[in-house]
Amino acid sequence: MIHGAGLFRTAGVNRDCSCGTSFFKEGIPSLVMSDGPMGVRNEFCDDSWDTPGTNDDFVSYLPSETAIAATWNEERAFECGNVLGSEARGRGKDMILAPGVNIMRTPLCGRNFEYLSEDPFLTGRLAVSIIKGIQKNDVSACVKHFALNNQETQRSDINSVADIRSLNEIYFPAFRAAVREGKACALMCAYNRWQGVHCSENKTLLEKILRDEWNFDGVVVSDWGAVHSTKAAAENGTDIEMDIFPNFDDYHFAAPLVKAVREGSVSESVVDAKVKRILRLMQKLNIQGKDRNKGAYNTEEHRRVCLNTARESVVLLKNEGNVLPIDEKKTKTVTVIGYNADAMQSPYGGSAAIKALYEITPLAGIKMYLGGNTRVRYCQGYGYPKKDCEDIEKFRAQLHDEAVKAARESDCVIFVGGTMHYHPEFRLGNNALSNLRGKDPCRIDSEGFDRDDIKLPLEQDALINDILDANANTVIVISSGNAVDMSAWSDRAKAIVQTWYNGMEGGRALAEVLFGKINPSGKLPFTVPKKLEDCPAHALGEFPGDGTDVRYNEGVFVGYRYFSTFKKEAAFCFGHGLSYTKFEYSGMKVKAGNNNVQVKFNVKNCGNVAGAEVAQVYVGGVCEKPNGRIENPSLELRGFCKKYLLPGESAECNVTLDTSAFEYYSEEKQDWVLPDANRKIFAGSSVEDTRLEGEVSVAEMQSGI
Amino acid sequence: MIHGAGLFRTAGVNRDCSCGTSFFKEGIPSLVMSDGPMGVRNEFCDDSWDTPGTNDDFVSYLPSETAIAATWNEERAFECGNVLGSEARGRGKDMILAPGVNIMRTPLCGRNFEYLSEDPFLTGRLAVSIIKGIQKNDVSACVKHFALNNQETQRSDINSVADIRSLNEIYFPAFRAAVREGKACALMCAYNRWQGVHCSENKTLLEKILRDEWNFDGVVVSDWGAVHSTKAAAENGTDIEMDIFPNFDDYHFAAPLVKAVREGSVSESVVDAKVKRILRLMQKLNIQGKDRNKGAYNTEEHRRVCLNTARESVVLLKNEGNVLPIDEKKTKTVTVIGYNADAMQSPYGGSAAIKALYEITPLAGIKMYLGGNTRVRYCQGYGYPKKDCEDIEKFRAQLHDEAVKAARESDCVIFVGGTMHYHPEFRLGNNALSNLRGKDPCRIDSEGFDRDDIKLPLEQDALINDILDANANTVIVISSGNAVDMSAWSDRAKAIVQTWYNGMEGGRALAEVLFGKINPSGKLPFTVPKKLEDCPAHALGEFPGDGTDVRYNEGVFVGYRYFSTFKKEAAFCFGHGLSYTKFEYSGMKVKAGNNNVQVKFNVKNCGNVAGAEVAQVYVGGVCEKPNGRIENPSLELRGFCKKYLLPGESAECNVTLDTSAFEYYSEEKQDWVLPDANRKIFAGSSVEDTRLEGEVSVAEMQSGI
Repeated sequence: MIHGAGLFRTAGVNRDCSCGTSFFKEGIPSLVMSDGPMGVRNEFCDDSWDTPGTNDDFVSYLPSETAIAATWNEERAFECGNVLGSEARGRGKDMILAPGVNIMRTPLCGRNFEYLSEDPFLTGRLAVSIIKGIQKNDVSACVKHFALNNQETQRSDINSVADIRSLNEIYFPAFRAAVREGKACALMCAYNRWQGVHCSENKTLLEKILRDEWNFDGVVVSDWGAVHSTKAAAENGTDIEMDIFPNFDDYHFAAPLVKAVREGSVSESVVDAKVKRILRLMQKLNIQGKDRNKGAYNTEEHRRVCLNTARESVVLLKNEGNVLPIDEKKTKTVTVIGYNADAMQSPYGGSAAIKALYEITPLAGIKMYLGGNTRVRYCQGYGYPKKDCEDIEKFRAQLHDEAVKAARESDCVIFVGGTMHYHPEFRLGNNALSNLRGKDPCRIDSEGFDRDDIKLPLEQDALINDILDANANTVIVISSGNAVDMSAWSDRAKAIVQTWYNGMEGGRALAEVLFGKINPSGKLPFTVPKKLEDCPAHALGEFPGDGTDVRYNEGVFVGYRYFSTFKKEAAFCFGHGLSYTKFEYSGMKVKAGNNNVQVKFNVKNCGNVAGAEVAQVYVGGVCEKPNGRIENPSLELRGFCKKYLLPGESAECNVTLDTSAFEYYSEEKQDWVLPDANRKIFAGSSVEDTRLEGEVSVAEMQSGI
Repeated sequence: MIHGAGLFRTAGVNRDCSCGTSFFKEGIPSLVMSDGPMGVRNEFCDDSWDTPGTNDDFVSYLPSETAIAATWNEERAFECGNVLGSEARGRGKDMILAPGVNIMRTPLCGRNFEYLSEDPFLTGRLAVSIIKGIQKNDVSACVKHFALNNQETQRSDINSVADIRSLNEIYFPAFRAAVREGKACALMCAYNRWQGVHCSENKTLLEKILRDEWNFDGVVVSDWGAVHSTKAAAENGTDIEMDIFPNFDDYHFAAPLVKAVREGSVSESVVDAKVKRILRLMQKLNIQGKDRNKGAYNTEEHRRVCLNTARESVVLLKNEGNVLPIDEKKTKTVTVIGYNADAMQSPYGGSAAIKALYEITPLAGIKMYLGGNTRVRYCQGYGYPKKDCEDIEKFRAQLHDEAVKAARESDCVIFVGGTMHYHPEFRLGNNALSNLRGKDPCRIDSEGFDRDDIKLPLEQDALINDILDANANTVIVISSGNAVDMSAWSDRAKAIVQTWYNGMEGGRALAEVLFGKINPSGKLPFTVPKKLEDCPAHALGEFPGDGTDVRYNEGVFVGYRYFSTFKKEAAFCFGHGLSYTKFEYSGMKVKAGNNNVQVKFNVKNCGNVAGAEVAQVYVGGVCEKPNGRIENPSLELRGFCKKYLLPGESAECNVTLDTSAFEYYSEEKQDWVLPDANRKIFAGSSVEDTRLEGEVSVAEMQSGI
């Protein structure tokens, strides 16, 4: 019961375990798990990474966690969680290894697409909704990866060195919310170390913080292969050891633990405690109940959730001269350029790979949207040949030239570039490519890899510039898992759109945004920097560390907390996202009430089309210390609400802040502290575009205590 | 304009062709066509059978024509046509090569799945609906294959010898209905010969019958490569020559025709007439209009049509002891056996192959339906290994034994067998299989092949019998394009279900029927014989002919017309299909009215569940000739209506018969004749299960004139 007996399941107990109760009379079943956040992963043979090869495990392919975060919509997050839980249950799973709530410390982390955002509040709110959605289906979420697993480089051993304030303010809040509010039934301990100790055997992390402080009563599952000891891991909080090799009896929690208990070096009560937690989990999942939720997969309703989420996730970064939306009626030919436009992403990305029932690519979405009366011309533009090719450099030059020529000839050009879950070359068994293999820098979004830069791969910057020379109105769409450096062309491009690994309906949603059927309402859940060096982990901190440690010297100044406090200009700031309409903010009222502070204001759609605005509430930091050292972020997100408004319509936003919204964690006192200063409250459209300002006094803040 | 300039398009004319009108100022566009009845085929490069390899041409995959016919529902047929037309237009096509309306003369014809039924009336009604659905979208149907293309063996040259009465009563009516009622804009002439002359240059067929008698004013497109001459084909009715090789200027209607016109051997007016027809077609399609339908593909609505059609198409052949529907609540484990259960069919079958957005197999459908609380065990049962295998015979024996063992151990066993669009072995690059290749008899449903027998391939009969020995309640599902010989086990099996190449949602629909969410309402659109030799083409006629001619000596006694008239017992008769409820027929009234005869009766659902009944109206033939020779079929389908009824609910069926319902075609008079005898009218649940009887007098019949 406490270690893998299949690559994704425990063994259970095959005898009457009822002990006089009505439970587990027919034994204790296996606990069956599956990756991962974007859908339920394909089946594997029980004891190998081979697949059964049947066609019964295609599933709905959800927008990535980052895409969900870009909706800034808890309802969408709940619905996505619900799809994930329902499909997991439908496929016979008890636990789905999701959501990923690690903070995006650096855009380079190859797994950021599985995470929500750079902000702990946004991450926490959405994670809670996803967890509730999952667990509604008698399926356990498994919140990952606890904790400080913010890079893939040397992930198995790297020691993440972060101070206790950063942990409490940045890296823990989403986990804490997942446990306390989301009531997550399970949590996955991470591969890396903290304070020199692997997370899987880290008493402070798993016992003191997780169980004692946060009162977590669920199950801690190890990341696959994250357990490195028997006694230490068994005694310090890990409940179930999972691993990736099929000699299940050799797992630390298998024969070695039996031996250790028999020899007396580990108390049997340690094992009992784990079993109790697992049994309690099974009861929560109604695992043997006749009325247990049976789940479903590939339903029409699930696909609609994928579509609606994707629609809300697309972020309009720039739109000079109203290049967007494209007027379909005036457009006879559309030229779509870019390998990413036609690339299937679902089967790749590591453990988050999905055997999608289908995936609508941007090109397919555009063609489906436009139908037969508009000619759509496609140019690959960059990348690798589909077949063997004598001279790759020549081939690439041809792709480039063909695309630029097409852009020159076309009134309407849409470039769809970005990053991928894989190097296109990896998919080829192409001899002529072997000399190139590995030479293109690693700029993929995948488990097990970090990007080596945030510049676009495959010479896309040069191509984009040449295309903009050929056609200044070219719409630039970037499809990526996290921020890319757009500085080579972002000043010149009139229209820039950010999209994501956006699920089975992602291409359809994108097309609907480009042609104005859907008014974009996504907001960046991270900062897009002008260059990698501007990011706090790189400007103040370390990445990827010295091989032993990676020091989080930037402290709490992660993401926009750094950019806004240190007046560093971003390409596009946290919370940014345009609309085809305009919103006006007015009438801010700040009022202390029953144990909290109410912030109210109005948002009005003052344009001609319906649209949605994510109104964001930030609390201003207390001033710098007397000695001039900056101690607190100048702004911190403490609330948001999304309003759908018809033209001319207004709505009141009502955001409740409790005391924690004003506190910081004092390293000195090892506790949360309410600073003795009045504080500013801002409401606005992004962290840089705050429109309203209010103030709250110390007394009012204290009303929340 | 009159020959292929791409594999699926004409060239058009690239200059002002308005001649003072407002039309075609910017030239005459290409006419762009696509296969085939189950969806819009993938893109090909213009001048080769290579594919562009992009991901933008996945489409909705519709139930096969035979499945549509099994619904006996004109609304479903219209909706399927509408999906086909909408997707064709959405993909930029002007013409979709569908529907196929050839009569199923023998179950062996490998292309029967592309055809509707063995009955001309049923075929005609549904073809008209499909055509109207397609053409609603500013897309031309192309009704195929005109005429007498009832086998694939030697299809390019075989001379189909049928008497004029059979042509008029059996082989022409659906084409005639397609032209007259369906207003089909185009028709495809067949590969074969009639009266020794290829259909593409057959003056009687294309000029006398099609244009003069039926007033067809549309375009005749040749089957791909069906034109064998320049002058003869040009002068005898073919308008557009299509072929499968890329030397477009070498086509008969290209350089050779230009030469023939210049030399005076073919009049320019012959070409003008074709061009006029094509221009008229283009006007019908609103080909240059700004308001032309733009189509759409892969919409949710299209998928719903696929699902609803599949739901209504499944035929419950037998259900002793109410084995079906399976009670999900009493079922903890379901064993699914059969290669067909997990086989993807959409990518195969010849020109009808579909690049489906997705395909839900029977196994996937069952798993999706049952969800996570019921264990589904799958055994392949028969067929080929997925990987290299030393000893195929041993492998097959293992598959067999494993399946039988699983059946023995399981309470609930579903066997899903049948035929496929391909030999499974064809998909394998398996050296160890090479000695078997070609040895398994050809029993596939595919363009270009006829089956060599209607027995199940791959030793399924033996397996089914062994499974029935192991578990007598095993549900036998047959998935096939046409009738298979079930005699080896049909007496023993308690529950038999017939399904089809049933589109992207076929597996879901099947599961819903098996577990009772959907009450089956499909009816056989053909006779399932006890053995091949019982079929009229084999008992009275010839198949596949002598290499030159194939004589249709069975005359009008095709399908049930033979079985019912000659008292030949079928395994399952035409029109047969059970329900989970029972229907009572009552109150038949026959009344001559204004130019027609009205047949009215009531159908009542006298069971406990809602369901639908296809009530069928047959007209009895006039008696045998004085010399004892049987001249007329004893029963002929002349009407049907499908009623959805709640438990206890009744509905009136109201079927109108005009004079043609009582006529036969006299070879002597070369015209339709109304026999001078009172006639019986039957209403019932199948051709063998007529429940009500009425009579109509000569005078009443004549009221229709």
